[in-house]
Amino acid sequence: MKNKINVGLIGHKFMGKAHSHAYRDINMFFKLPFQVVPHTLCGIGDDLEETAKQYGFLNTEENWEKVVSNPDIDVIDICTPDSFHRDIAIAAAKANKHIICEKPLTVNYQFAREMRDAAKAGGVNNLCNFTYRGVPALRLIKRLIDQGKIGKPYAVKMQYLQDFSISPQFPFVWRMDSALAGPGIFGDKGSHLIDMTRYLLGEFDSVCSMSQIFIDKRKDLATGEMRKISTPDCAMFLAKLKCGAMASFELSNMAAGRKNAFLIEINGEKGSILFDLERLNEIKYFTYDDPPEQRGFRVILATEPEHDFIVNWWPSGHVLGWEHTFIHQIYGFLRAISEQCENESNFEDGAQCQQVVDAIVLSNQRGQWVSVDEIR
Amino acid sequence: MKNKINVGLIGHKFMGKAHSHAYRDINMFFKLPFQVVPHTLCGIGDDLEETAKQYGFLNTEENWEKVVSNPDIDVIDICTPDSFHRDIAIAAAKANKHIICEKPLTVNYQFAREMRDAAKAGGVNNLCNFTYRGVPALRLIKRLIDQGKIGKPYAVKMQYLQDFSISPQFPFVWRMDSALAGPGIFGDKGSHLIDMTRYLLGEFDSVCSMSQIFIDKRKDLATGEMRKISTPDCAMFLAKLKCGAMASFELSNMAAGRKNAFLIEINGEKGSILFDLERLNEIKYFTYDDPPEQRGFRVILATEPEHDFIVNWWPSGHVLGWEHTFIHQIYGFLRAISEQCENESNFEDGAQCQQVVDAIVLSNQRGQWVSVDEIR
Amino acid sequence: MKNKINVGLIGHKFMGKAHSHAYRDINMFFKLPFQVVPHTLCGIGDDLEETAKQYGFLNTEENWEKVVSNPDIDVIDICTPDSFHRDIAIAAAKANKHIICEKPLTVNYQFAREMRDAAKAGGVNNLCNFTYRGVPALRLIKRLIDQGKIGKPYAVKMQYLQDFSISPQFPFVWRMDSALAGPGIFGDKGSHLIDMTRYLLGEFDSVCSMSQIFIDKRKDLATGEMRKISTPDCAMFLAKLKCGAMASFELSNMAAGRKNAFLIEINGEKGSILFDLERLNEIKYFTYDDPPEQRGFRVILATEPEHDFIVNWWPSGHVLGWEHTFIHQIYGFLRAISEQCENESNFEDGAQCQQVVDAIVLSNQRGQWVSVDEIR
Amino acid sequence: MKNKINVGLIGHKFMGKAHSHAYRDINMFFKLPFQVVPHTLCGIGDDLEETAKQYGFLNTEENWEKVVSNPDIDVIDICTPDSFHRDIAIAAAKANKHIICEKPLTVNYQFAREMRDAAKAGGVNNLCNFTYRGVPALRLIKRLIDQGKIGKPYAVKMQYLQDFSISPQFPFVWRMDSALAGPGIFGDKGSHLIDMTRYLLGEFDSVCSMSQIFIDKRKDLATGEMRKISTPDCAMFLAKLKCGAMASFELSNMAAGRKNAFLIEINGEKGSILFDLERLNEIKYFTYDDPPEQRGFRVILATEPEHDFIVNWWPSGHVLGWEHTFIHQIYGFLRAISEQCENESNFEDGAQCQQVVDAIVLSNQRGQWVSVDEIR
Repeated sequence: MKNKINVGLIGHKFMGKAHSHAYRDINMFFKLPFQVVPHTLCGIGDDLEETAKQYGFLNTEENWEKVVSNPDIDVIDICTPDSFHRDIAIAAAKANKHIICEKPLTVNYQFAREMRDAAKAGGVNNLCNFTYRGVPALRLIKRLIDQGKIGKPYAVKMQYLQDFSISPQFPFVWRMDSALAGPGIFGDKGSHLIDMTRYLLGEFDSVCSMSQIFIDKRKDLATGEMRKISTPDCAMFLAKLKCGAMASFELSNMAAGRKNAFLIEINGEKGSILFDLERLNEIKYFTYDDPPEQRGFRVILATEPEHDFIVNWWPSGHVLGWEHTFIHQIYGFLRAISEQCENESNFEDGAQCQQVVDAIVLSNQRGQWVSVDEIR
Repeated sequence: MKNKINVGLIGHKFMGKAHSHAYRDINMFFKLPFQVVPHTLCGIGDDLEETAKQYGFLNTEENWEKVVSNPDIDVIDICTPDSFHRDIAIAAAKANKHIICEKPLTVNYQFAREMRDAAKAGGVNNLCNFTYRGVPALRLIKRLIDQGKIGKPYAVKMQYLQDFSISPQFPFVWRMDSALAGPGIFGDKGSHLIDMTRYLLGEFDSVCSMSQIFIDKRKDLATGEMRKISTPDCAMFLAKLKCGAMASFELSNMAAGRKNAFLIEINGEKGSILFDLERLNEIKYFTYDDPPEQRGFRVILATEPEHDFIVNWWPSGHVLGWEHTFIHQIYGFLRAISEQCENESNFEDGAQCQQVVDAIVLSNQRGQWVSVDEIR
Repeated sequence: MKNKINVGLIGHKFMGKAHSHAYRDINMFFKLPFQVVPHTLCGIGDDLEETAKQYGFLNTEENWEKVVSNPDIDVIDICTPDSFHRDIAIAAAKANKHIICEKPLTVNYQFAREMRDAAKAGGVNNLCNFTYRGVPALRLIKRLIDQGKIGKPYAVKMQYLQDFSISPQFPFVWRMDSALAGPGIFGDKGSHLIDMTRYLLGEFDSVCSMSQIFIDKRKDLATGEMRKISTPDCAMFLAKLKCGAMASFELSNMAAGRKNAFLIEINGEKGSILFDLERLNEIKYFTYDDPPEQRGFRVILATEPEHDFIVNWWPSGHVLGWEHTFIHQIYGFLRAISEQCENESNFEDGAQCQQVVDAIVLSNQRGQWVSVDEIR
Repeated sequence: MKNKINVGLIGHKFMGKAHSHAYRDINMFFKLPFQVVPHTLCGIGDDLEETAKQYGFLNTEENWEKVVSNPDIDVIDICTPDSFHRDIAIAAAKANKHIICEKPLTVNYQFAREMRDAAKAGGVNNLCNFTYRGVPALRLIKRLIDQGKIGKPYAVKMQYLQDFSISPQFPFVWRMDSALAGPGIFGDKGSHLIDMTRYLLGEFDSVCSMSQIFIDKRKDLATGEMRKISTPDCAMFLAKLKCGAMASFELSNMAAGRKNAFLIEINGEKGSILFDLERLNEIKYFTYDDPPEQRGFRVILATEPEHDFIVNWWPSGHVLGWEHTFIHQIYGFLRAISEQCENESNFEDGAQCQQVVDAIVLSNQRGQWVSVDEIR
């Protein structure tokens, strides 16, 4: 095996920064049989050169096709707006590059299947980066569920609440135009919740959704004009899961005071589990295994050696931050490359998630329950 | 005005105990122009005499009609199973007694209207005891909303979660038979959530519901036989409110670890509010009025002199319990009698709530959105 | 045995109200072989008659000696300022009345021993009402410690924090004059903490204290003049306990935002326990008995049937308030009378507590460690 | 100015790792006029080469004197056991290297003054890395205090609680031998608390301490023999601060369930502030500026653009971890070098802190109050 893995990263904004940081840190904290090299940063804008230097990339490139076709590059990492994911991923697969693609995989289920199939055909490792699978506390939840600690799941509540666009002065951004952003908040925040539900509890059966636009015009800072908003500010949906549980979901960019509240509650026949991303090192867990007089939700700080990834970091109670999740996810991907096996959180997961997103969008249009199987 | 108010209480179990305690304590803590007398306790069972003595009633009676027709009695308080509420309330109204009726008002909207109309026709004060309107912390939420502190409401989340029947060994009780219990959990827990939503935010437009029975047979302790369960263990529903907000609801008797979790979250354009009945003296409140660097959810202990009812009790921080809510509600009712005006939380509220319950039950059957106006 | 117990209550202000409420409610919720009768309320002031009526007393009396000598009265309950406790209690003991005395038992150890000895000589039941022994959650802590759940205690932190006098506009009250109030905050708040420490962990060995007066003059509302303050606003002390644990204590009337924060943390070799009176139905408990990956502080809501007193009240999760603690304490006292045995939290406890208070006051004067044995 | 800063890091264990990570990340997130280069890693052990590669250092060296004398190196970073700090720092100062030294600065006040004086004489920038000054939430506390938001401070409570050595099976380590570790927990955990107190509130006047060894023998894994423990497992002390506040402190390595609980409570005349390092992105803040009915402790998530350092990282609510604090501290130091000014948290701070540590150790021996001025 090569002793270096060269990464070509396409997209140099928010997600590009988070991924770049992962490449910078990964060899320090995780054992891999190769050195990960931030090889080429691809993006458009005057700040590309400076950003590449800041992030530690050796080269820059404005044309993604050149990155994909560069024989020195081993991994293509896609951090562009969603609508570009498909073309880049398919080209990368054809060029036999391993692929990382930020979530959501793409803008609809058909594209997602094409991407998944292309990756399979190319025989390349592929990661759809549902980054919260990299939170040690969430992996503890997964472990507890898989160990049967909560038994049959009854009720699931998932919310992803932020308030970044609550001010009418917050400007128009491309995610607010459905022509560019496709399913909007359903793809952006919704895919996080759907993937986490699938990760923890399995597949969706059917969904019923509603949504609202509370502020219908915002200023486009590029033009100074007011633009019509066509994607929801907030949405709620119910779901029936194949495991038999009922589930409710909420997505909001306008939940006052909620800064990054990815909230989970799962009630099962033997126990319950709670999580809040704003306290991402913790879970709350209730079990009937405790003696009756001692039962209660315990706050578990998932920073012990027994918890995933922690031995690679710091001693007990020295809490991790949001950015670590990217390192954990990319580590899983790179280890799978090194071990020539499949990684979890792959394009198949991305496609399954997209199918549910499409069902929710359809339900939202129809005002009715929609079976996920209806989406093809 | 008379210097005594004689109460006839029908139903001597859980709610009968809570109401009896209110009659016992009310004159000690609240100024009223009359003494409240626990006059007659009506119920069926060998324990009636002893219970009456324990609760401080002067008389007992097994036949509710005799209580209603007793000229010495001023107030009829109905704490029976739901299906008896209508007949007793209508008889009491005809006998020109003031009426307290535990929530839910009755088992369907038609009966509820009959009760409301009878009370109006009788010219009597009437209280449908949605007891959580008597929580000082919830009244603080009401005040903050009415003062415009959260602005236009965007998203509302209401849950009422307990776990009392999560064990398969928990026996069959009458509430699990839809023939006796009508809407089951929708009436029992649902009416609490619906009324609180109405109290805080106004009327419902439409609803979409689902529900599940997770344990479908339980032992009837009276007969030793297994009985089929026909009311849901858990339900979720979405709603559109007339104020423009989206809302989601969850009801459960099988939410592990949740003992009495009546949970509220309201996100508005200017702030957010949270509540949990297990910490009933507290609310959490977020406002953009705070300077940016100082913003956060503050935990307000609603036990200050500025909060409703507190001056009648103890100094700051000397927390109240669940039972106090009944005293507060009944105090409002009795004060309205003394002032010859209408009290809030009356049969009109009970009927409006029942209309929404019926819409949810219908939606649950149809698997579709139902407009509340459709219920007549 | 008599079927009635007549209570003569001396002192009709804050504590008088809390005790009166207990007499009103106790027969409704707790089984006793006699009816508790609020017989005579003794106090000074124009509001005595009205208060007696409000509290449900049959008679009033301004002279406490007449109450003590009234042959109809079985129990003398002392809710006066601390400096009157001794004379009343000793007279009551001589009159062979059972005695309840609010904490602190009195103003110094010598007086306390006299009271204890008089009660013994009189052969009467005696309760020094350290009311927080009546908190079900605190009794759960006691149970866990007694079961060895935390093992050998290492470190104890106890705080009693309020902020009622933080404003310089808060007026002079008698507790701020050491001539009247004796040890001031050491007796008032300190005795709560000391007794709870003794209740949970046993005796004190030695103490080292400091204190401060932050606002040294306040207006006397009676005269309009500024008065010098001679008792501390805030105090801290260290202690060595005979069980081998180290302990630290804090008392404050000027801890901003702390309304009634009686805070406990006990760290032992096998676990830890936390408590906050502002959430008086809860404890937090950590145990190494949990599997390593599942360890955390669990929040136990002490409102289950397995917890002390709860079966007498309401179902799970229907939380109790501050006032219930008085009912529980007085119930223990009355049950002991009925069973002709000794109750816990008696004058012996009051005296032991007073000895520690005196040691702290002495340490505070000396600026040195003081052995509790030095106080005689 | 040079465009590269070469760092020689002495000590390659826990703190060495944390500092190395800072050097790796700092140029990506913070603007500096030079590139920070991890030049030479100095340590003893078979793992040095591999560690240097992992951490990204260009060279290794076993002899610290060669690192100090290497003309290519600009900054000496000292992460050795405490007893080596002095000699290295003084040599580095003489060699005109800028110096970073992990806390505690050294093992006694005399050494600390020597180090401080040497750094001054050398005219070099110097950082004593009290890393928690780099927590954005703690800097928010500093800002609120400096803005007068809590007014005159009354009471301060500081605790640093862990449980890493609570098991008797936890082995002997050098910190448990006072011959090697000097003041032990007083230097290790105590210096964190003392510096934070100084940072937020200013100087100490006097202290009174006690401590305990709960497990007095532990196995030395190197020899298999049981070794006597001579440094405390747990300590408590009181302090009087020059600002007039009272303060209490607790240090523990055996506080069950407390993993990294650096807890702060400051009560002032206008408000209060709380902090827990296990939730290091949050503070709790109470202010009387809020309207009476809305007062409460607000949980401020210090991840907004208005908070220190956050604009360099991620959007709101994307929480930081423990390791970021090192980046922030070292950034302040490097920026000061680039701006040719002094940085905060320097050797003067280290020396002042050491003086208080020495006073506490002396008080612990004497069992009496000790004035900090007595330490010279």
